[in-house]
Parts: sequence; C-alpha cells; structure tokens
Amino acid sequence: QLFGLLEELHPADIADVIEDAQDEVQSRIFELLSDETKADVIAELDDSTEADILEELSVEEISDIADEMAPDDIADMLSELDEERSEEVLELMEEDSEEVRELLQYEEDTAGGRMTTDFVALPDTATVKEALIHIGSLKLDEPVYFAYVVDTNNILTGYVQIWQMLKTENRQKPLGLLAEENTLTVTPDTDQETVARIMSKYDLSSLPVIDIEGHLLGRVTVDDIIDVLEEEASEDIFKLAGSDDAELEDPSPFSSCKTRLPWLLITLGTGFVTSMILKGFMQSITTMEVLALSFFVPIVMGMGGNTGIQSATLIIRGLALDSFNEKALYRLLLREMATGMLMGAICGSVIGIWARFVIGSSTAFHPAFLALSVGLALFSAMMFAAIFGAAVPLILNRFKVDPAVASGPFVSASNDIFALLIYYGVTFLMISVLPV
Amino acid sequence: QLFGLLEELHPADIADVIEDAQDEVQSRIFELLSDETKADVIAELDDSTEADILEELSVEEISDIADEMAPDDIADMLSELDEERSEEVLELMEEDSEEVRELLQYEEDTAGGRMTTDFVALPDTATVKEALIHIGSLKLDEPVYFAYVVDTNNILTGYVQIWQMLKTENRQKPLGLLAEENTLTVTPDTDQETVARIMSKYDLSSLPVIDIEGHLLGRVTVDDIIDVLEEEASEDIFKLAGSDDAELEDPSPFSSCKTRLPWLLITLGTGFVTSMILKGFMQSITTMEVLALSFFVPIVMGMGGNTGIQSATLIIRGLALDSFNEKALYRLLLREMATGMLMGAICGSVIGIWARFVIGSSTAFHPAFLALSVGLALFSAMMFAAIFGAAVPLILNRFKVDPAVASGPFVSASNDIFALLIYYGVTFLMISVLPV
Ligand SMILES: [Mg+2]
Ligand SMILES: [Mg+2]
Ligand SMILES: [Mg+2]
Ligand SMILES: [Mg+2]
Ligand SMILES: [Mg+2]
Ligand SMILES: [Mg+2]
Ligand SMILES: [Mg+2]
Ligand SMILES: [Mg+2]
Ligand SMILES: [Mg+2]
Ligand SMILES: [Mg+2]
Ligand SMILES: [Mg+2]
Ligand SMILES: [Mg+2]
Ligand SMILES: [Mg+2]
Repeated sequence: QLFGLLEELHPADIADVIEDAQDEVQSRIFELLSDETKADVIAELDDSTEADILEELSVEEISDIADEMAPDDIADMLSELDEERSEEVLELMEEDSEEVRELLQYEEDTAGGRMTTDFVALPDTATVKEALIHIGSLKLDEPVYFAYVVDTNNILTGYVQIWQMLKTENRQKPLGLLAEENTLTVTPDTDQETVARIMSKYDLSSLPVIDIEGHLLGRVTVDDIIDVLEEEASEDIFKLAGSDDAELEDPSPFSSCKTRLPWLLITLGTGFVTSMILKGFMQSITTMEVLALSFFVPIVMGMGGNTGIQSATLIIRGLALDSFNEKALYRLLLREMATGMLMGAICGSVIGIWARFVIGSSTAFHPAFLALSVGLALFSAMMFAAIFGAAVPLILNRFKVDPAVASGPFVSASNDIFALLIYYGVTFLMISVLPV
Repeated sequence: QLFGLLEELHPADIADVIEDAQDEVQSRIFELLSDETKADVIAELDDSTEADILEELSVEEISDIADEMAPDDIADMLSELDEERSEEVLELMEEDSEEVRELLQYEEDTAGGRMTTDFVALPDTATVKEALIHIGSLKLDEPVYFAYVVDTNNILTGYVQIWQMLKTENRQKPLGLLAEENTLTVTPDTDQETVARIMSKYDLSSLPVIDIEGHLLGRVTVDDIIDVLEEEASEDIFKLAGSDDAELEDPSPFSSCKTRLPWLLITLGTGFVTSMILKGFMQSITTMEVLALSFFVPIVMGMGGNTGIQSATLIIRGLALDSFNEKALYRLLLREMATGMLMGAICGSVIGIWARFVIGSSTAFHPAFLALSVGLALFSAMMFAAIFGAAVPLILNRFKVDPAVASGPFVSASNDIFALLIYYGVTFLMISVLPV
C-alpha cells in the first residue's frame, strides 16, 4: 500500500521524500514506482540524489524510463552518466534519441542546455482552422499555449497564441497574417542568465532558440527559467560568503569543509600578513604605543570589511539583475566613494569620541591625539573599503569574469590588510607630524 | 520623432529609458507617451521612479491611465499614492474600480497583493463547445491559457487547459468531467514567498487564490512570481551584507548611507566592546604578553567571522528555498559543529605552525606555547562560530521571524566578540596551566 500512497503524490513531492530518505533506502523507494512516475520523479530530483539512483539502475531500466521523459529532461539525466553508459541508453531508446543527442551537445548552463524540443511549429500558410485541428490531435507531454510560425525555408517568423486563434472569426486566415512578429529569440550558446533576464524582463512564458540562419531549434520554458534564477541567486549568495551552492544538495561536514576551506585559507593567508605587519610595527614605535593602537585594530578592520562587503553586494546583485546601465556603472564608483566618506565621517567621529573619553586616558598618547588619529584612520579605511568593494566586481565584470566568483572573500581579505595598513599608516603619520 | 521611436519600444525598455534618465526629464519623457503605453510603462517602472512620476500627474490623468491597466497593476499603482488621491482616482475611473478596491485591501507581499482578477471562470455544466466560443469572444489584456471551473455555488472545483478542450472530440462534454481536480490553491493572506515556493516546485503558470469557503478570488501569474523570487533573493543577499535591496532603486550616497549605517553601528558597538576587552586584558597580564597575543587578534576574529557567515548563509538560503525538511533542520546544527571542528582543526594546526616558526621567536612566550594556544583558540573560535552562525537563523525561523533579517551583521558582530573572548580565554587558561 506504500506504493499506492506514493503514486498519489505529485512527482515533486515524491522527489522530496526520496531526497530526505536515508541513502540506503532511496533506490528502494524509487523502485516501487511505475516507469511513468519514475520519469517524472527523475526530472525533479536534485543532481546528487539523481546520480546516486542512476548508479543503481541498469542501462535497460534507464532507457525504459527515458522513453517516458521529455527530451530536455532525458538530456539532463544522461549528462549525469558517463559517456559510455549514456551512449548505451541512447541506443536502447525507442524514440527521441536523435533529439536528445542534439541537446547533449550544448553546455548545461546555456539556452541550448536549458531548452526543450517539445514545441509546435506550423507553416505560415496553414489556416487557423488547420492549426486548431492539428493542435487538438497532438500527443505532447507538456501543455501547449501557442504555435510557432515558420516560413517555407523553415525560418521562424513569429508565433500565434491558441486563444488568438479562437478569437479569429475567419478560420481560413493563414497563420502568417495573424502571427506576432517581433519575436525575441536567443541562440543555443546564449548564457542561461541572459535567457532568464530576457524572460523575466519581458514576462515571457517561452523563449524560442534559433540557429544563426534562423531555424527554430527549441524553446526555453519559464518553469526551467525559475530554476535558473534560483540557482544563480544561490550561487551569488554562497560566493559572497565564500562557499558554494553545492552545499545545499550535500551538506555533509566533509563536503562542506572541502567547499569552504579554500575561501577560509584566503582569510588565513591574510592573517599571516596581518600578524607580520603587527609584529613589524612593534619594532618601529614603543611597545606602549603599539599596545594603545592595538585596541582599535578589531574595530577598524571590522568596519572596513563590512563596508567593503556592502559595496560589493550592491554591485554584484545590481549586475545580476541588470539594474544598472552601462553609463551608470562607472558613476557607481563615485557614489560608493561618497557613501564611504559619509559613513566614514560619521563612524570616525563616533570612534574618535569613544577613544578620547573612554580609552584614551590610560594610554601612551594624549587622548586628543588618539581620538584624532583613530577617527581619521577609520574614515580613510572605510572610504577605501567602499571604493575597493565596488571596484573589484566592476573590474571582474569588465573582463567578462562573473563578478560573484571572487569578490566576497577577496574583498574581505584585501580590506583586512588595507584597513590595517591604513590604520597604522595614518597613526604613524600623525605621530611624526603632531606633538604626541 | 522621439515619440515614434519610444512608442516602438517594449514597455519594459521604455521603463528602463525613463529610470536611467535624469530626474528632471523623467516626467517629460513619460508625457510623450500615449495613455495605453503609459499604462504598460507604469506597470514596469521601479517603485521610486513610479512614485516620482505619479507625483507630477493630476488625478484625472492617473485615472485615464488606470482605465488602460490590469486591475492588479492599478492596485499596485494606487498603493504608491496617499489615501486621498487614491480615492479620487478610484472615483474617476470608468471601470474595474470595485475590483481594484478589493485588491487594495490586501497586504502587498501576500497572495492577495500579488493576484490579478483577470481570469476566466466557467460553470462545470458548460460544454467544451460553449467554453471555446466564450473564450474566443473575450476581450482581455492578458493571454488566456485555461479556464477555471466552478460549481453552482461558485466554488472552485478545477481547471481545464484550452488545448485539452481542443483535444476533446466530444465537444458536448461538460467541463466538470474534463477538469483537472487536484488544483492547488492559496488564500489571500498566504505569504508571497510561500506562493512562489509552490509555483516553482510544481511548475505552475498560475495559482488560484480562494477565500475560506472556496470561492475563486483571483490568480497569481508566474511573471509576477518571478519578480517575487528576485525580490526575495535580493532581500536576503542585502540583509546578509547588512544593507537593504532598496539600494538597487536609489543608490544615492545619502540613501545608501541611511540604509547601511544602522548595520555598521552594530559593528561599531562591537568595536567598543572589543576595545574595552583588549584594554581590560592589558591590566591582567604583562604588556609584552598582551602584545604577542595581539598579533593574532585579526586572524582569529577574521576566521571566526567568515566561518559564522558561511554557516548562516547555508541555513538562510536553505530555508528560503525550502531545501531542508523539519527533521533535517536540527541535524544541521550538529553538521555545522562538525564542519566547524574539521575546519578549525586544519586552520588551527596551520596557524600554530606559523606562530611557532615565524612569529614565536621574538615574543614573551615560548614558541611552542604560543603555537599551542593560538591554534587551540582558533579551533575553538571556529567551532563556536559555525554553531552560532547556524543557530541564529534557525532560532529566528523557529519564532517565525525572517531568518535573513538580523542574521548577517548580528552573526558577524557576535562572532567578533566571542572570537576575541575565546581567544584570550583559551590563552589565559593555558598561561595559568602550562609552564610559559
Ligand atoms: Mg535533474
Ligand atoms: Mg538540458
Ligand atoms: Mg552563470
Ligand atoms: Mg517581469
Ligand atoms: Mg522542462
Ligand atoms: Mg551568476
Ligand atoms: Mg526596469
Ligand atoms: Mg510598480
Ligand atoms: Mg498587487
Ligand atoms: Mg518576505
Ligand atoms: Mg520547478
Ligand atoms: Mg500581473
Ligand atoms: Mg525572504
């Protein structure tokens, strides 16, 4: 009866049940399902669970399941297998294997990798009546909302919504005269983020993918684009923290450690540098002076780090959402500088007062001197951090590197070092210029 | 001719042009458009630009534009106005004002606030033929892909896709027999994030909103849900950095400063505490000892902070994507502890070696002692940070507070203080136990 209960659930819920189950029983639950449900469930599983389950299946079983799946989902499934097994499955499949082979050529995170070959294309000479009859006779896995229209050379010229056909009283009218012609298109190598931006901006439910001659190759559907948007947002959030969205699928301590440690090692390396700097300063001024200054090291570094991450976050998210136009992009640097100065002036004054009245009395410095130099140092460090935090993602973006990839930990680490250097630099300058 | 060029663009592109223009010309560009285009553009503008433009318009002009808009977009527009003007616009409107009044009752970030009243509902006794004719005769602003089916009490019982109707050969079949019945629904007060989760998980293009009796009130469409997903992801990314997604719309230095400063003040307050702690320690051990330990303050705090943010990010994003089931949620704490211990053991060993061979020789301590205590302190601080970073969002979530709201800066600030206390705590303990 477990079988009956499971089969009643939505495939997305069955996938959840399997993902949450212990590793040993995942395959056993999957085995309970009918081939058709297996097909739907595979398409919903996360990559790591999917790979585990496929490992337990024979190529014959996989090809039986594939025969129930949409071409894009088959391609996604086969890309989890090694070349050899994937080829065996393709040879055993009863239909669609040519389409799947074509889809398999494309990179996973491009329009080609995200598209499906399930679509309706009709010649522009077909009448509305013919179109309606044709659509009524189709056996497709996914719902159809509209038909693409192609000319005699099979070049995409537009699309017609089904309800537009229903609204057309003259059912003898050729589709070519009815078609919406300003159709947005992408090529298979378009990055999935660009596809998502276009579909989100223009509120599209489907976006056609064409080759350079204009032939229709497939379409990307909005449900898959939602997954792209969530993946890309996760990627950016995790990268900013010095981690990776793979953690969501397999948060075992060992894999988490493997993902996070490289980023932490950047911080650790920074720590080597800061400890050397601090030791170096010890030799240049008196012990008591270094000591008094060291009270404010955490605050200057902390503020520098946070200010830098705030700027980097604004730029990274703004770039991901395409919120800034080309011209605004470089104005942003000036704005961040202004923001950094403003915040630095406020925080610098506050810390100055704190240093003057609470800490100052028992140090090697005159309290006013301590106040002035700590305040000025915080101001400089924050201004610098804001500019640096904004500049790094802008520069990465300029060179076509994903701004999220290196910015988070890199910005933090660099700002730690710079904040410390600025802090001691400013105070040393003050010591040499002012009467202490 | 500027007018002609503008009108040719997609409303989303016109909105971009206006958003990117100088404040003074925004309204003047908008004035160039026809009422119909104005209506489309208003729906695409970001909130702050929209508010600016509406300010310049008379209530008569706004109501003329409203007459060209979909009810949900009108409600969104009116919520940017004050009560009084909004009421005046509603009284001047020629149609839909009742529907809009109803939509205005709902909170913006709920299903009610996101839904539209544009939908097709047919009685379950209507035949396929009647349905197709009815749909063909509709004049709607948004495309129709399916009809909702209601019973004699106007209670939602299911839906039928248009292409399913076309596929039905017996056109006299009543819709009630054809309808998909396991329809997912939400109530108007359902949080928009929950709506987005459901639509994303089950790949829905529309989700019906019903009242407690089951009457159909409206539907949420996938294009609006994409905006929700992007907003919610932005919110979480910005909150983690101690900022707010409002920055994307108005990144002037003053508003950025106003948004970011409160978070920075948390860090600043933390700095007060750390400077007091450092000063306090100066009085309890010798100056040279404090000095030697201060070399490693930045590294211990930096590593603690980053480890905490990594854990917090995993939990916050996992909760937002609903990736963890209830049972897994508390196992995650143990996993994070394990991850923290693992990473702490590795980083602690590395820093120990560094302290022993590079820094150790010129301090008040025996190099081996310094290595041991710094290493152990880093290990403890990282383990604690990992647990704390995971626990804070889990606890917030438990008490139904959005885990993203306070976690980022709160986790960083707390970990700064704790890392410092742990660091000096561990080393003091070692000093009192071991021969220095
Ligand atoms: Mg998959
Ligand atoms: Mg694919
Ligand atoms: Mg990408
Ligand atoms: Mg949109
Ligand atoms: Mg698909
Ligand atoms: Mg990206
Ligand atoms: Mg825009
Ligand atoms: Mg709006
Ligand atoms: Mg609304
Ligand atoms: Mg929310
Ligand atoms: Mg989905
Ligand atoms: Mg809408
Ligand atoms: Mg949220």
